[in-house]
Amino acid sequence: MLSEDELESIHRASLQVLSEHGIEMLHPKSRELLKENGSKIEGNTVFFDPAMVEEKTALAPSSFKLHSRAAERNVTIGVGHLVTSTVGSAPNYVTLDGERQGGDRAGYRDFLKLAQQLNSIHIIGGFPVEPVDVHPSVRHLEAAYDAYTLTDRSFNLYSLHPERVRDAMEMARIVRGVDYDTFCKQPSIWTVINCNSPRRYDTPMLDGAMQLAAANQPVCYTPFTLAGAMAPITITGALVQQNAEALAGITLSQTVNPGCPVIYGGFTSNVDMRSGSPAFGTPEYAKTAIIGGQLARRYNLPYRSSNVNASNAVDAQAGYESTWALWGAINGGVNLLMHGAGWMEGGLHASYEKMVIDADLLNMAAVFMKPVEVSDASLAVDAIGRVEPGGHYFADEHTQARYQNEFLSPMVSDWRNWETWLDAGAPRADERANKIARELIASHEPPAMDEAILAELTDFVERRKSQGGIQTDF
Amino acid sequence: MLSEDELESIHRASLQVLSEHGIEMLHPKSRELLKENGSKIEGNTVFFDPAMVEEKTALAPSSFKLHSRAAERNVTIGVGHLVTSTVGSAPNYVTLDGERQGGDRAGYRDFLKLAQQLNSIHIIGGFPVEPVDVHPSVRHLEAAYDAYTLTDRSFNLYSLHPERVRDAMEMARIVRGVDYDTFCKQPSIWTVINCNSPRRYDTPMLDGAMQLAAANQPVCYTPFTLAGAMAPITITGALVQQNAEALAGITLSQTVNPGCPVIYGGFTSNVDMRSGSPAFGTPEYAKTAIIGGQLARRYNLPYRSSNVNASNAVDAQAGYESTWALWGAINGGVNLLMHGAGWMEGGLHASYEKMVIDADLLNMAAVFMKPVEVSDASLAVDAIGRVEPGGHYFADEHTQARYQNEFLSPMVSDWRNWETWLDAGAPRADERANKIARELIASHEPPAMDEAILAELTDFVERRKSQGGIQTDF
Repeated sequence: MLSEDELESIHRASLQVLSEHGIEMLHPKSRELLKENGSKIEGNTVFFDPAMVEEKTALAPSSFKLHSRAAERNVTIGVGHLVTSTVGSAPNYVTLDGERQGGDRAGYRDFLKLAQQLNSIHIIGGFPVEPVDVHPSVRHLEAAYDAYTLTDRSFNLYSLHPERVRDAMEMARIVRGVDYDTFCKQPSIWTVINCNSPRRYDTPMLDGAMQLAAANQPVCYTPFTLAGAMAPITITGALVQQNAEALAGITLSQTVNPGCPVIYGGFTSNVDMRSGSPAFGTPEYAKTAIIGGQLARRYNLPYRSSNVNASNAVDAQAGYESTWALWGAINGGVNLLMHGAGWMEGGLHASYEKMVIDADLLNMAAVFMKPVEVSDASLAVDAIGRVEPGGHYFADEHTQARYQNEFLSPMVSDWRNWETWLDAGAPRADERANKIARELIASHEPPAMDEAILAELTDFVERRKSQGGIQTDF
Repeated sequence: MLSEDELESIHRASLQVLSEHGIEMLHPKSRELLKENGSKIEGNTVFFDPAMVEEKTALAPSSFKLHSRAAERNVTIGVGHLVTSTVGSAPNYVTLDGERQGGDRAGYRDFLKLAQQLNSIHIIGGFPVEPVDVHPSVRHLEAAYDAYTLTDRSFNLYSLHPERVRDAMEMARIVRGVDYDTFCKQPSIWTVINCNSPRRYDTPMLDGAMQLAAANQPVCYTPFTLAGAMAPITITGALVQQNAEALAGITLSQTVNPGCPVIYGGFTSNVDMRSGSPAFGTPEYAKTAIIGGQLARRYNLPYRSSNVNASNAVDAQAGYESTWALWGAINGGVNLLMHGAGWMEGGLHASYEKMVIDADLLNMAAVFMKPVEVSDASLAVDAIGRVEPGGHYFADEHTQARYQNEFLSPMVSDWRNWETWLDAGAPRADERANKIARELIASHEPPAMDEAILAELTDFVERRKSQGGIQTDF
């Protein structure tokens, strides 16, 4: 998308922003650390030394393993790999009966069950929907308990309070059945740190980022830079800001613990300038997703992008915006695809139907990226000679030997002819996905967990709950 | 998608198919011409000399201008250009009231009106829907009359009878207001020749192909190679057959009239091996679309691909399959995008709603392909410095100077928040597109046509109708 020279101009402009305009880092310890490493501080603002930023960024690994409680679910996050996650952090969801409502634990658990049933979803990317009916003092405990007992995928934590982060890391350690030293050698839980764009990291976020860095757990720095709103209206301007903000976070992590795992996150999109509404899955978004990948590779870092759309309904718009976003991510060389399945309405609701459709899209992407076979057998000159002009290949031995696995069979795509489809009630894609989601949730079985580990996990949650969890003022 | 070596192996395998297995060419004159040029003939089958195929193919231009009756609608078909067309040749359509029915002239005319209103549709790619209520003896006359009076775009003809081809070329000449010699120097009407895959070209198709070549009008050779049905089940095998069939046609054209314009068409997809149904917009399709483009560029020829899907409804499936097809085409470097707007159900019906949605997708593709601005102004370091941490860019001069044209405003994408959308009746994308289609068709005005040309066109149609048009046996 950009030439090397053009990419360098974004890099240089970001360093200029970091050194001349600076970033507000609200946590005092982050400022102290950066000051010790040669940054200039004025009030809450850190002015970064460009050479220090380049030096620290170069310390981060290009690839790392993220461990799960089930070894077969361990994933590698980095160049040459594509790891996909569920939707995360939606405040609302649409029930299987089509009602949009605030998140609750029942809905949250059903999203986890559905994700566990879908092999194209590799990890759980935060709470698919916020279980608002669980009190915030203990929500992180109950939510993590559900995630670890209903799925065997790696989980994610929110940097919303030092104790919540400690609890979440401890639960991740318990389910892995390892001691703390091993846990720190084997990244097992991760978080996303969103900059409060423009140019501000808040205290709870920075606290969590520093805790995770110290424990060698991955942090994905993802500025949320909507061009025209929280970032310049030009694509490249928004990317300069994204890059400056991401590098600020990555530099902090490497200052805390040189060599700790980080992920370069891109989330630059545009807003509808008539209404101020955010837009996703636009051509502008696809461009930023691709350039974001170029930037991540310039720093030799794993790249995070997302499968997003702004549609309210699981309709044609949801289909085309998601596919545009997915293609932007793929063409950008994405390594961690956040919100890979189930994201709707610019992130304001999670959808079971969309999660099923997205699982198909992710499988389609996997097939697309599989190298094409080119061999004498695949070129099939003999088969072409065997089939008469005007004939067909159905019965030919070349077809018979391959037909069962040659092509992807998606769950939702309906290729029946019109009459058959009409006789079946003319179901739209979202209606077919609803049926599949119901079946998968109903047939979910909790993946096996060692009894001693389950007991330790349950004890931990009960003990922390009996202590009142995290103190809140309500 | 493929390395140069891999591409060459497809090329060589195609030449082997052409020379060892041959192609059935049912028109005697085509066989005679190819025999005179060194091919071996057995019965109806032509065995091509590989050196002759390479020599003839090299004579075709990489780019040419396709003229319209309105000079501002002239388009260049070739490398560096992307020309988009309407859906063509659907036997059915879905009315604006949602009923699927056989094609008729009223529906046909409405598709032309809608296409004329959409600037992202550059040419008319055949009959958007077949006007079955017009008798076949005069259908080509009435249909072309409608296309030339309701739109100012370049039109297309069907090679279904020598006289129909002559009539269509004559009408194209009349609306351009040029003499026959000029018409032959300025390509003004084109056709698609589909091989009856595998390995057979029928008589009417070859007759039209030779007529058009002689008059220097473009022919797009497009084998319809469904992997597993009319072509080998492997992607590369199906492409070997596609390539052999396309080269056979192109070679014939260059034998008739060296240097005449041709287009390399790719239409390789896969079938659902459980049901035999054709599938479109699959990851396998996207791969063939990209490799098809590599093959066209290897021969230095304009490349035709399509915007396809197999969905029965304008739903999420239609959205994602179309976008996969479109991305395959774009990544394949498509120069002529057939069925660019309105194609549904594997080509079995045309849809007004889909035409509107596709017009948006085509505009999105255009924005995506526009080079990204990288300048001091776009990098916006000063604007980033002006906006306080945690602030916003809405009021900044950098935003104000650009906000009106920085981003695409699609017609159909709905970015309103949930409550506003719900208050508006919660319209899905297809419902919004229906409203837009109704408005655009209702506000269509026939583009101006010189009165003398209109009189000549009308006279021609009336005269040919009074002669009974084309003789049919019913």
